[in-house]
Parts: sequence; structure tokens; C-alpha cells
Amino acid sequence: MTENATPTLTTDQLVSRVAAASAVWAATPYAERARVIRAIADALDAAGAELIAIAQEETALAEGRLQGELKRTTFQLRIFADEIERGACFDVRIDRPDAEWPMGAPRPDLRRMLIPIGPVLNFAASNFPFAFSVAGGDTAAALAAGNAVLVKAHSGHPRLSDATARVVQEAAVAAGAPEGLLEVVHGTENGVEALKHPLIKAASFTGSIPAGRALFDIANARPEPIPFYGELGSVNPAFVAPAAAAARPVEIAEGYLASITGSQGQLCTKPGVLFVPEGSPVIDALLDAAVPGPAPLLNDRIASGFVATLESVAEHGAVSVLREGAASRTAEPEATLLQTTADAVLADPEGLITEVFGPVGLVVTYADPAELAPIARSLEGQLTATIVADEVEGDLELARTLVPALADRAGRVLWNQWPTGVSVTYAQQHGGPYPATTASGTTAVGTASITRFLRPVAFQNFPDALLPEALRDGNPLGLPQSIDG
Amino acid sequence: MTENATPTLTTDQLVSRVAAASAVWAATPYAERARVIRAIADALDAAGAELIAIAQEETALAEGRLQGELKRTTFQLRIFADEIERGACFDVRIDRPDAEWPMGAPRPDLRRMLIPIGPVLNFAASNFPFAFSVAGGDTAAALAAGNAVLVKAHSGHPRLSDATARVVQEAAVAAGAPEGLLEVVHGTENGVEALKHPLIKAASFTGSIPAGRALFDIANARPEPIPFYGELGSVNPAFVAPAAAAARPVEIAEGYLASITGSQGQLCTKPGVLFVPEGSPVIDALLDAAVPGPAPLLNDRIASGFVATLESVAEHGAVSVLREGAASRTAEPEATLLQTTADAVLADPEGLITEVFGPVGLVVTYADPAELAPIARSLEGQLTATIVADEVEGDLELARTLVPALADRAGRVLWNQWPTGVSVTYAQQHGGPYPATTASGTTAVGTASITRFLRPVAFQNFPDALLPEALRDGNPLGLPQSIDG
Repeated sequence: MTENATPTLTTDQLVSRVAAASAVWAATPYAERARVIRAIADALDAAGAELIAIAQEETALAEGRLQGELKRTTFQLRIFADEIERGACFDVRIDRPDAEWPMGAPRPDLRRMLIPIGPVLNFAASNFPFAFSVAGGDTAAALAAGNAVLVKAHSGHPRLSDATARVVQEAAVAAGAPEGLLEVVHGTENGVEALKHPLIKAASFTGSIPAGRALFDIANARPEPIPFYGELGSVNPAFVAPAAAAARPVEIAEGYLASITGSQGQLCTKPGVLFVPEGSPVIDALLDAAVPGPAPLLNDRIASGFVATLESVAEHGAVSVLREGAASRTAEPEATLLQTTADAVLADPEGLITEVFGPVGLVVTYADPAELAPIARSLEGQLTATIVADEVEGDLELARTLVPALADRAGRVLWNQWPTGVSVTYAQQHGGPYPATTASGTTAVGTASITRFLRPVAFQNFPDALLPEALRDGNPLGLPQSIDG
Repeated sequence: MTENATPTLTTDQLVSRVAAASAVWAATPYAERARVIRAIADALDAAGAELIAIAQEETALAEGRLQGELKRTTFQLRIFADEIERGACFDVRIDRPDAEWPMGAPRPDLRRMLIPIGPVLNFAASNFPFAFSVAGGDTAAALAAGNAVLVKAHSGHPRLSDATARVVQEAAVAAGAPEGLLEVVHGTENGVEALKHPLIKAASFTGSIPAGRALFDIANARPEPIPFYGELGSVNPAFVAPAAAAARPVEIAEGYLASITGSQGQLCTKPGVLFVPEGSPVIDALLDAAVPGPAPLLNDRIASGFVATLESVAEHGAVSVLREGAASRTAEPEATLLQTTADAVLADPEGLITEVFGPVGLVVTYADPAELAPIARSLEGQLTATIVADEVEGDLELARTLVPALADRAGRVLWNQWPTGVSVTYAQQHGGPYPATTASGTTAVGTASITRFLRPVAFQNFPDALLPEALRDGNPLGLPQSIDG
């Protein structure tokens, strides 16, 4: 499918339509925006059965999984609506004039806040047809921030994308939002054309490293470069400390296998590598634990990528198969575990610490916990890193070395929990140094993601009536205002 | 000069030295960091006479101007030290576990804060040998954020750069900071080598559009791209509304001329274009007002660039000379005013709305205030935009159209004040859409600039003792903690 959703409109026309809506939407009061966003969430919930039926036809995801994902998606819209009414995300700062300012010159009246960045292009993901797609996280954040959105639909669920867009569009217009608040394009060429369009002021992306890097390069090569918030790839290493490995091998093995087989391993936070002590009972437990039976991957492209990457890692000279799943090299695989050593990882980190999108894990045995810190420090950027340890000396000593090293390489560090299942909260961080993302200073999940689609402006010496309401004396909107620092 | 300041060390060795210091500095408690930064400020103040003498030899800036700039520089270091002790800049967020979280799955314990981004490379500016150079704004912000800094010295003041670095280094080490907290390289090749170095994690720049764009492209083409905070160029248009032009022409003309001749017009916020009503008394006042006599520009490169750009604008078919300064096309010019019309600007915005670094202004006459909003909307990104208007109907009506258009195109919008003289405050915003900067989401001046050199990390389900102190229960550092939203 390479036609746009509204086939009578070209990509250029769709961008212009979104840009016109964006100007109106940016000037819409926060409470009004919040009302529209909640109406969108309500409409998506109401259309849930119909949308989930289409999603089941287009993806291999189970009904329960899709129901949970839609619930997450509408919750996300609502918490973002709440967030812009609370208003801390606009970072309002007011400096009153100060003739004695110790810099050496009088301080003027300066008032700064974050305003909408402009029309946003959002490249949707394959693996979350709701939560990282048409009405997903980046769309919700961009809308809350005050920007209209053009979504480049993922080719894995084109009809669901159009159906979702229609629900959003009808609900938004019925609630008083401008036409064009959200539009959809299909096809790589249209996506690239939109990314190069001068009216697009920011872009977001969830997908693979090669595709994300190619789009990042296009965004930066524009005559006017724009921020490109790409979430690309992550191995999400997990480190099991010796005492924990000895004390609770079955719990660790079952937890790990559940985490790498959830959604058939097609999650960006899947813990793809597990470090365990040599000869640990965790290894036996990994062999004994039950895993789900063979199940289809999302689509043919992901299946062929999975088989190829799995085979390339499995054929590495330092890798052996620990547990081969049924039909493991097909489009409907059961989970597979590979095995190598910490020495081998240190010798060839790039060859072994690599993302395999699907139900497979690499178990890395270490002879001495002291081998782990150098590995942690040499990691490429990650979305997450996990420590499984007990609060006893030895494990704690290891943790004190690993925590700062992992915080330096990952956006989220976990203690005795698995990284899959990313909660939408105020303190969530879903990001990390490259290649996990192209913008480690921001998050793709949680209320802090709204800031991605805002930019600061200061107003100097303005009469109150000409200021945005958020910056006025008397604080008519009741937002948090930081006054004189 | 293409040798590094410590000629026995290569650029690679200097980067490694800075990276080693950065790891130690990142782990240094905020209060300790603040103490070191204040010691650096004290040492720079103490060395002021010596440093200013070198600056006078290397630049054409007057002693009083340099004294003010040094005062601004040390004030900046101190206010940033205060800011990290106050700690709001670390954006601490704590979500406590919530089994009933309405997303559909229990919310874990999540704690998020901003941590140091890693070693920073700072390309210094020509026009502020103190405030945007070795110990200037980006260095102060990066140090406060917890990163060591490698400065690429500007070729316009190499000896001052080395002397400043020595003062900083000695003060820092005496106060207990690691060796290598701040180092200097000289020469474009060494700067580019450092920018490509994998241990450098962010870069900042103040300078021209071509140089800034070239470095931005290098930063983004790295195998691991890094944030590049470039402040490039800005015309800073000012719009005089009809009533104000009629009521106070002399005040406006004198204020404008003072703003474009301060520091010989070599300021990034110089209001390079002034829109006034056709036949306005402001034009006569601009012809009558006194201007400073001829004075040297910063250096030969800037002088030749000034003459060439001034001539190219002056030769534009739609441009005439309103007031030619003495020696106006030399390295020691007096201020010059050119003149054109709003129609001409709309017909060729790129040819006419262009930065001339030096004491020149383009006066644009408009026949109808309605001509101004389309021009405002068509502007390239700007650091500032200024409205000069009276609070009477007519002017206010114009302002209500211009303010949102200018906020969309500029980082700071002013009302009846001139944009030069950028105060260092909590609410300052010195940035703007490209080409004003390469990162419109951040600021180069003011306490909010610390955030440029931080990145978020979340800790999930951690024992209190293993968390960074800022995230612990009981809040031992007493920083602002946002709990459960």
C-alpha cells in the first residue's frame, strides 16, 4: 500500500493541512486541548472492538495483548491531557526586573515558557499497532504539546492505521478541534517526502537502527534541520549476581524466559543478553522452565530478519545452542537460548551484543564478577540495563560498580525486575544513548515526553495583556510559575 | 597557531585526559562541584587585570567592555554553582509503586533524574573572549552539569585562552577538582579531531552559519551522533509601530543606533533590520542622532567579512544608503544605515534579511502595518525579535498579530527594549529556530542552559542505598523532588 489515506490529497497537501491545523491548535487553550484529547481517548475506547478486530487481521498479536495495548494507549492520552492542565511541563519562569542584579547591569522583566514546536511527523512502529502507532505515545505527546501530527503509518497494519485515524479525526472535530489535527500517509516515499517538507518541525520514529539512522540523516541534512527523536535498537543486558543466582535460580530463569517470550520477543526492551555465573543453577533452570509454544511473528519481514540475525549469532564461533526451540528458525518459532562466555563478549562485543528481534536470548557465563564492569562500560547505548542481585555483600559490591557504569550507558536501570512492560508514568524514562535512540536527552514514554515537542521562548518587558496567559501576573491559569528562580 | 596549549599532548591525549576527569567530576557531590566552580570564579576575578591586559592586546575591545564581560563571566559561574545546589535543574521525579495504576498494570517504583551527559567540547566565540570562550557560558553550564570540558580556543585570542585556562586549572585543582577538568586545543584541525572523538559526548559552538553548519554536520555524521548546540546567526528584526514612531522618534532612533553600535555591532543579538513607517520622523531622527566615531573591528577576518557583506547588501537593487559612516567600508568603520522597502523584503527576504556582523543597520519602510505580519511569518529562525510600540489601539492591534508570529520564529521577543545586552538570569532564553541555532529546544544563556549537558536516567525498583542521593527517600540533599506527579 503506497497510497495516502486520503488518496485525493498529495503528501504536500496533507502536510499543509496539518500545518494549518497546527497553528490553530497551538493557540487553543490547554483546557480545551485536554478536552479534545480526552474525547479522542473515549472514542478509541468506544471503537475498541472494531479496531482490535482489524488489528488481529493485520498482525499476529493476540486479542488480550491488543486489548491491553489499547487500554494503555487511551490511558496515555488521558494522563497527557491531565499533564497539560497541571502545566508543570511548560516550565514557566518569571524574572521580575532587578536594578541591582549582580551581573553588572539591571535585570529586565523576563518571562520564559515552552511553546509548541510546530507540525510533527511521527513514524509508527510495527510491534505496537496502537501504543506506538497512529494514536500512540509520540502522537499523544505532540498533540498535548500543541502540535498537529502527520503519522507515517507502518506497513504492517495499514487498515488499522486508517481506521484509527478516522476515529481520532471524527472525535477531534466533533469536540471542536481543527480539521487536519491528525493525518496519515502510507509508504516510505511519502514518509521521506514529508520528513523533508519545510513545514514539518520535528519527527519521531520507532523502529530499526538502519531505518532510523537513514531518517535521522535526512532530518539533519535538511536546509533547516529538525529534531529527530528516533528509538532504534537495544539489547537490554541483564546481569545476575552470584548470590542471587545461587539463592533463586528458578525464579530468575522463569522471569527471564517470560520477559524474552512476551509478545514473542518483539519488544524493544526485551533483555536479549543474560549474564550468569559459570556453572550456575540458573542455567539448569533455564533448560527446565516451561516456555510458550511456537507462535507467529508479527509479519514476514520481521520473521525473515529474525531468522537471519539468529543464525548469524548462532554461527559465531564462540556461541553454542543452550536450548533450541521448536521451529526456531521459522516464522512461528518457539523460544531459543544461545550461550557464550564473558571472555568471548569482551573479545567481540559488536558480534555478540546485538539485537535479535524475536524470542531468543543469549546466556553469557562469567568466571569472576570482576569481568562484568568492563563489559558494562563497553556497552553501546541501551534503553535498559538490569541487575538481578541480593542485598548481601558480594552482590552489593558488584552492584556498586555496575550501577554507575550502566546508568552511563542506559536510559533505565532496573533492580530485580525485568525491563519489558514499560509503565506510562511521571518518572518513566524510555530512551538512552545512541543507538538506543538518536536523542538521549528525551523520553518516548511517560509524561516527560511532552517536552520533546515544545521549545522555549522568552518575552522581555511585555505588557501583561500581550503575554501568553501562562506568563501573566496573577497567574490566571493557576500553573506552577517559578518566580525569580 | 595550530599547536595545542599543552604541546606535549596530542588532541587524542587531551580528550582522554578530559574524559578521565569527567568520570570523577560526575561523581563529585553537587556542593563540592559548586565550591570548585566558585573557586574558579574567584581566581578569574583575582587575575582580572592580567587577563584583561592580554585581551586588549589580542582584541580591539575596550578595557571597560572587557571588565564588564569578565564580571558577567564570573557572575555566571557563581549563579550556576548556586543553581546546582538548589537542584531544580536535575528534575527529580519519584513514582512510588501503585498496584492500582489505571494503565492496566501495576506501576513500579520509578525514580528519574538528569545526570551528566559526558565530556563536552566547546568551540569558543570571537566576540566574547571571556563570556563565550574558555570559561564562558557553555563551559560554566557543562561544568555545573558535572562534565569536564575541552575548549577549542578561538583563533582571535589564543594567548588569552591559554592564560584563562591556566587560571581555571590551577584554581580547580587547588580546590580539589581532578586534573583535566578543563583543557584547551587550538586550530580547526584539532577541533574537528576532537569533535569526531568517541569519548566526546556533546559539543557547543558560537560563531557563523557556515562554520556552525559544517561542525553540526560532522557531529551528526559520527558513528555515534552527539548533540551539537550551535549558535549560528541572527538578524534580530525590530518592528516600530506607527503610534510609537510618531510619538517618540528621537528616543527610538537613539536607542536603535546605540544597540547596533555597541561592541561595534559585533553582537549576535544586534537588531540588524528596523521596520519603520514610510515617511516616519524616525528616519530623520536616525539621520540626526550622534553615533560613535570610527573604531576597529575585532580582527582582520571579521573586518573583511564585514566589508564584503555590507557591500553585497548595499549593492542590492532595492537598497539605498540612508547614512554612510566615515570609513564605513574599512576595518575601522563608523556606523552605516541602509534603506529599503517592505515590498522589496517580501520579494527577496533572503537577499535583504541577512546578518552583517558589524555596525550597520537596514531600515525598512512600510506603507501599511498589514505588510508586517507576512514578513514576520516568513522570517528564518532568529535569536530575538523586537516590537517598539505604544499601548494604544492601532499599535496594540498590530502587536496582537506580530507577537505570536515572532514567538514562532524567535527565541526571545522584546517589547520596547533593545535585544543587545543579554542578561544572565533564570528565565533567559538565548536560542531560536535554525539558523539562529541548531538546537531550538535549549538556551545558551541563563541557568536553563545547564540542562543542555544533562540526560535523564530512571532507576526502577532500587534499594535506597544504591540510588543517587538526589533520588533517595528522606531527600538527604534537600532538592526539589516531584513525587507521584
